[in-house]
Amino acid sequence: MIRPILLVVTPFSQEALEPLQEYFDIVQWQSLPAPEAFCAQHGSGVLVLITNGMVGVPPPCRDTLANLALIACNGVGYDAIDLGWADARGIRVINTPDVLSADVADFAMALALAAFRRVPAADRYVRENKWRRQGAFTLTRRFWGSKVGIVGLGRIGHLIARRAAAFDTQIGYTGRRQQDGVAYAYFPTVLALAGWADVLIVATPGGADTCHLVSRVELEALGPEGVLVNIARGSVVNQLALIDCLESGQLGAAALDVFDDEPQVPEALAQSASTVLSPHIASATVQTRQAMAALVVDNILRHINGKCLISPVN
Amino acid sequence: MIRPILLVVTPFSQEALEPLQEYFDIVQWQSLPAPEAFCAQHGSGVLVLITNGMVGVPPPCRDTLANLALIACNGVGYDAIDLGWADARGIRVINTPDVLSADVADFAMALALAAFRRVPAADRYVRENKWRRQGAFTLTRRFWGSKVGIVGLGRIGHLIARRAAAFDTQIGYTGRRQQDGVAYAYFPTVLALAGWADVLIVATPGGADTCHLVSRVELEALGPEGVLVNIARGSVVNQLALIDCLESGQLGAAALDVFDDEPQVPEALAQSASTVLSPHIASATVQTRQAMAALVVDNILRHINGKCLISPVN
Repeated sequence: MIRPILLVVTPFSQEALEPLQEYFDIVQWQSLPAPEAFCAQHGSGVLVLITNGMVGVPPPCRDTLANLALIACNGVGYDAIDLGWADARGIRVINTPDVLSADVADFAMALALAAFRRVPAADRYVRENKWRRQGAFTLTRRFWGSKVGIVGLGRIGHLIARRAAAFDTQIGYTGRRQQDGVAYAYFPTVLALAGWADVLIVATPGGADTCHLVSRVELEALGPEGVLVNIARGSVVNQLALIDCLESGQLGAAALDVFDDEPQVPEALAQSASTVLSPHIASATVQTRQAMAALVVDNILRHINGKCLISPVN
Repeated sequence: MIRPILLVVTPFSQEALEPLQEYFDIVQWQSLPAPEAFCAQHGSGVLVLITNGMVGVPPPCRDTLANLALIACNGVGYDAIDLGWADARGIRVINTPDVLSADVADFAMALALAAFRRVPAADRYVRENKWRRQGAFTLTRRFWGSKVGIVGLGRIGHLIARRAAAFDTQIGYTGRRQQDGVAYAYFPTVLALAGWADVLIVATPGGADTCHLVSRVELEALGPEGVLVNIARGSVVNQLALIDCLESGQLGAAALDVFDDEPQVPEALAQSASTVLSPHIASATVQTRQAMAALVVDNILRHINGKCLISPVN
């Protein structure tokens, strides 16, 4: 008897996969010498696929996966997964919301504070022995008391707002609509929020609906003393406009966990003195990655056993 | 008529000094070719001295300052100022509390988050193009939900506690005594607190009373997954024990704004992958340094005019 295949497209904990071994042949996409050839031959045997929200289902293989029943997205964003295509074929999609929200909110705060107080630059200054040779480090921006603008007040945005409020900041937000029972100031557009805020924290989903939501005019409104933090998706911010505004001084600083074409990071960002950069690690703690992997596997086990999915997307 | 001298020992804003020019000859210590000779000749003319809590009153000149009436300490810590000596001579001392507390608390949080989530190392990883060449960054420690131990729950410690609590942490503290009306868990010793905590944040005054309050046994109790944050004074932590514990892996990580012999930083700390370092900048924002300078000058003006000092130490 031929066993069904679980195709693991993006890196995933081997240990977490163990409970699935009795049900599936587990195939790691990244260890396949010829992924397209594999799909052409075995694609119809793939019942479940694990991926993430940037990679989705690899396009060349999509049409070979005739019996795909479940796409498990290891992350909360699923922007690279075509839900219309999945719905049309009756493919279920799950993601990993909630378990990563607090880590991402922590990291948004880590980046905001690092940008205002120039933590990585200060660390380099000490390591390179400049403190002793050149004297005091330049003064930085005060964070407490600032106006914090949150673009997208979802689960993660709310946790960011609660953290930021403890620093005696003012909180504003924008989103599709004003939320009931929320005391933070609502702004109808990103532009209005950027004009008000000292720091803009982007916490929206990715995908077509939010593409370039933050572009040149919003960055200019944020201004020469303004700070942009992006822990959402590179696509939400117009990266070329961002580079221009940082180079011209029309924007003060940017702290970025996400980029347009990861893991490519333009030299203009990597060499800037006005950036804090990180390699898409907002949810990358030991504990949270374990919790995400466990949630993916639990969803798959429930799917196999015909039970309700825990965190369905469609 | 000979005008009284204001001796400015440590760097201070020229602009902030302007209102004092009508009362004093203002002499910058750091521009004196021979400070000791100057004091020998003009020391008795010095009525007011501006310094900071690390430098205090330069010892070789102390006995020449026969008419010194006010020492203005530009900072909250005044550990290098000998209060017994000042009291015996009727010299008043002021410092700059409160105006810097929130910035220092912000910076303590910036350092704690930077250490847990390895922000400067992640920034280097991207800048050095390792994300593209070597793939994903190693997973880090979760901050939210951790046990935060605060050594010294004064004005700054309370602001740190309030900030940290918004990250769903548990807060514990130690100090000379348990504080009334404070819900955080009290530990009678640093050792007990370190044994409980995931991260120890040092926020005590400096000086003899707190010297090496955190030493080898406390660092070992904090443990291989523990994080030390010091925004107080280098003297509070036994720096040699700290280096040993980081090198042997008995302590997980340290984020340090202060050191034993600033601006000297031992190579063992500067080259460690387990440290986040900064050049004593916890209060070094544009806005707060202006507020500190203004408070120093306001105190001096009140002294001149025979009014109550705003922030007297003795």
